[in-house]
Amino acid sequence: MSVGRLDFLFDPRSVAVVGASPTPGKISHIIMESLEGSGYRGEVYPVNPKYTTVRGLRCYPSLREIGKPVDLAILAIPAQEVVDVVKDGEGVVKGCIVISGGFGEKDERGRLLERELRMLSSRSGIRIVGPNCMGVFDAVTGLDTFFIPRDRVKRPGRGRLSILSQSGSFALTAIDELASEGIGVARVVSYGNRLDVNETDCLEFLAEDDATGAVAIYIESVDDGRRFIDVARRCAMKKPVMAIKVGRTAPGITAAGSHTGAMAGRYEIYRTAFKKASIIELRGFEDFIDGCKALGRYDPPKGNRVVIITDGGGVGVNIADACCELGLKVPSLEEDLKKRIEKEFPPFFIVGNPLDLTGSVTDELFAKAVERTLRNKRFDMAIVAALWGPPGLTDRLPEILARKARAIKKPVIICSPGGEYARKKRALFRKYGFPVFTTPESSARAGWVLSKTSQRGGRRRS
Amino acid sequence: MSVGRLDFLFDPRSVAVVGASPTPGKISHIIMESLEGSGYRGEVYPVNPKYTTVRGLRCYPSLREIGKPVDLAILAIPAQEVVDVVKDGEGVVKGCIVISGGFGEKDERGRLLERELRMLSSRSGIRIVGPNCMGVFDAVTGLDTFFIPRDRVKRPGRGRLSILSQSGSFALTAIDELASEGIGVARVVSYGNRLDVNETDCLEFLAEDDATGAVAIYIESVDDGRRFIDVARRCAMKKPVMAIKVGRTAPGITAAGSHTGAMAGRYEIYRTAFKKASIIELRGFEDFIDGCKALGRYDPPKGNRVVIITDGGGVGVNIADACCELGLKVPSLEEDLKKRIEKEFPPFFIVGNPLDLTGSVTDELFAKAVERTLRNKRFDMAIVAALWGPPGLTDRLPEILARKARAIKKPVIICSPGGEYARKKRALFRKYGFPVFTTPESSARAGWVLSKTSQRGGRRRS
Repeated sequence: MSVGRLDFLFDPRSVAVVGASPTPGKISHIIMESLEGSGYRGEVYPVNPKYTTVRGLRCYPSLREIGKPVDLAILAIPAQEVVDVVKDGEGVVKGCIVISGGFGEKDERGRLLERELRMLSSRSGIRIVGPNCMGVFDAVTGLDTFFIPRDRVKRPGRGRLSILSQSGSFALTAIDELASEGIGVARVVSYGNRLDVNETDCLEFLAEDDATGAVAIYIESVDDGRRFIDVARRCAMKKPVMAIKVGRTAPGITAAGSHTGAMAGRYEIYRTAFKKASIIELRGFEDFIDGCKALGRYDPPKGNRVVIITDGGGVGVNIADACCELGLKVPSLEEDLKKRIEKEFPPFFIVGNPLDLTGSVTDELFAKAVERTLRNKRFDMAIVAALWGPPGLTDRLPEILARKARAIKKPVIICSPGGEYARKKRALFRKYGFPVFTTPESSARAGWVLSKTSQRGGRRRS
Repeated sequence: MSVGRLDFLFDPRSVAVVGASPTPGKISHIIMESLEGSGYRGEVYPVNPKYTTVRGLRCYPSLREIGKPVDLAILAIPAQEVVDVVKDGEGVVKGCIVISGGFGEKDERGRLLERELRMLSSRSGIRIVGPNCMGVFDAVTGLDTFFIPRDRVKRPGRGRLSILSQSGSFALTAIDELASEGIGVARVVSYGNRLDVNETDCLEFLAEDDATGAVAIYIESVDDGRRFIDVARRCAMKKPVMAIKVGRTAPGITAAGSHTGAMAGRYEIYRTAFKKASIIELRGFEDFIDGCKALGRYDPPKGNRVVIITDGGGVGVNIADACCELGLKVPSLEEDLKKRIEKEFPPFFIVGNPLDLTGSVTDELFAKAVERTLRNKRFDMAIVAALWGPPGLTDRLPEILARKARAIKKPVIICSPGGEYARKKRALFRKYGFPVFTTPESSARAGWVLSKTSQRGGRRRS
């Protein structure tokens, strides 16, 4: 399978929306809005025999009557009409995203429809994404087929992280979180029942994709295990690949079955496969988001050694525990560095790792302390836990910290727990480019994911 | 030790602030503001030989010269002056909160000061809280000795949860989170180096305290293990007690030592002690906050069986996995209930546990589905994961849900992940009294803590 084969999906020159409706709130109408709002520059053809125009565009009665080749057709129509529309698209469209549910995830009738559609796809060569999916959000090309309005689910800016997800709700929730955290993405695909185009096809594309710097995958099941491992291993040689397997427990497996018709299979088999393929295994939604925030921002560090700098002693101890329990190293400070800090800084510092700056800290001292420790060769990254109690801390801290840290080129993870006041400060840290976490555990998880990318070996060891 | 002995700390008739200063931003000044802002109704005496009035109150040169008995003196003065002030308070004050750091957590000189102060306390009978602490925030009596301004760290309203914490920063961060989540507290104590009054003394008070319905403890170390287990066990017979032990790993232990001078000890010993005392063991800050939110709101459920209702299939699978991995049960629906739901609700529902209402759900259907399942005797609590994509969901959902759920008297845990749009909706859920969680894992953690309170047996089994 050549990579070029999925260009129709991520970078189509033209898109048809089948079932297009002028009625606001209808799924097909929201898809039209998504395409407009995302800055997609190709041709858009609404298709619906009931209308002559939709949202100011000429509306065609059928795919065939567009009279021009169409790269991608998006089908937001009842399940039982899908086969006829795809037949009508033979010789016209390269691929379809079938948004519609009511297929294999639903009942026996849906499974039959799905089989018919699969045969049609393989006979006609028309590639099918879905059914029962959201399709594609692509921040590189501006393609957005998601049928949830932007005021409900924010779209992230352009970044280097690509996401593959069997679940649409998971993909949506993830991009919404990332958008509000200021983390950009490259390509996001929700492939649902993956009747034809599957996780491996998409991963093969992303492996060769210069816009993608890291990949995160949500898996209920994998279609073709052997090929998946092959492709994932090749991809992981070039860029970090992380994945969460859901349906690990009996109720989860049953639920995954009703959800995308997936046979979730034994968790142990997946774990082994992930290891073989050098995939970083994520164990839940929290891992997924924390990992995306870390890899969306930072290049792999040299290793897994963390220095913790904080003005809150208790929170520092928490982070140290959380880091160690995830297998990160929290080495003590070298004697030389310790002496230097004791000499250079005021006596209230409690000098160690964690380095506790206490409630008497100021912006400048905080930033200088981060610089001094992070520069040391014993550390690969820093977790900076800034609690906003100390009166010496002001809104300037994030900026000063960014200036000092930028030159060092090691990841700086911000841990900023707390309520409303802290929330405003978290926005400042984001503004200056830091990924921000709200608990000791989440900042440790971010460090853990980064450490797993540290060398090819790091990912393989697990 | 009789419980009445700590009344001076939680419900003092009069308070002296030693080191009181008219300069805004000074620690002693912020403490005066905290006392004013919290609605404390007793007498407040500023003490400082430099001033005649502070914040409109007569300022006394020393404790003795107040000329009246004082229940509680709050000392915000340099460490080396503390002993003299306490000596001056003999026969005047019942107890002191020593805010000042620079004692055992700092150096040898501090350890000597601490020893002197301990002897003085035991000779004079003056009880000492601290040093190196924040003191007390009491939502029942309105006492607030915390030296962080309210605009930086919000204070929670009155609730039934009491918190004991060796770490001041941990206590602050926790109450700030709880305040912004709309969860109230009863009594909060940060006891720092606990030179005299320790976790066990406070726990003994809380065990007999009608205002306290549940207790959460942050522990770096325990002073007197045997007595702690005794008291905790007695307390846990009456109300849920949960605790986090930090300093579980080597760097954490070292850090805890520099932080409050605590000898953190072997983690295994603590685990065994918690088990003996029927304390629910929390494994981190996330557990702590999630547990507080759950116990701050709900009475113990009957058992550990969860029904999951969602409009996002993938997130439902996630929650099911997270629940099972924490030992909660996610039983399938009874055949009768299944048939009833299939008959009563539209065909798009995917009927199971999780119950997936899909993107076609409405407010009314969502609330009715929660009611139908939660009422079933097979379930002890519900996790409701509402994703806000579906156009049929409006701002009325939380209210309708609250109305339906209230009559059933089983815990309803809201899982509401996502960015800015979801954040606004989370506030609505809180308004109607639900504890709200932002990840599948955190909602499962909340259910897990609740399940551990389910019967005395539940806590003991662990």
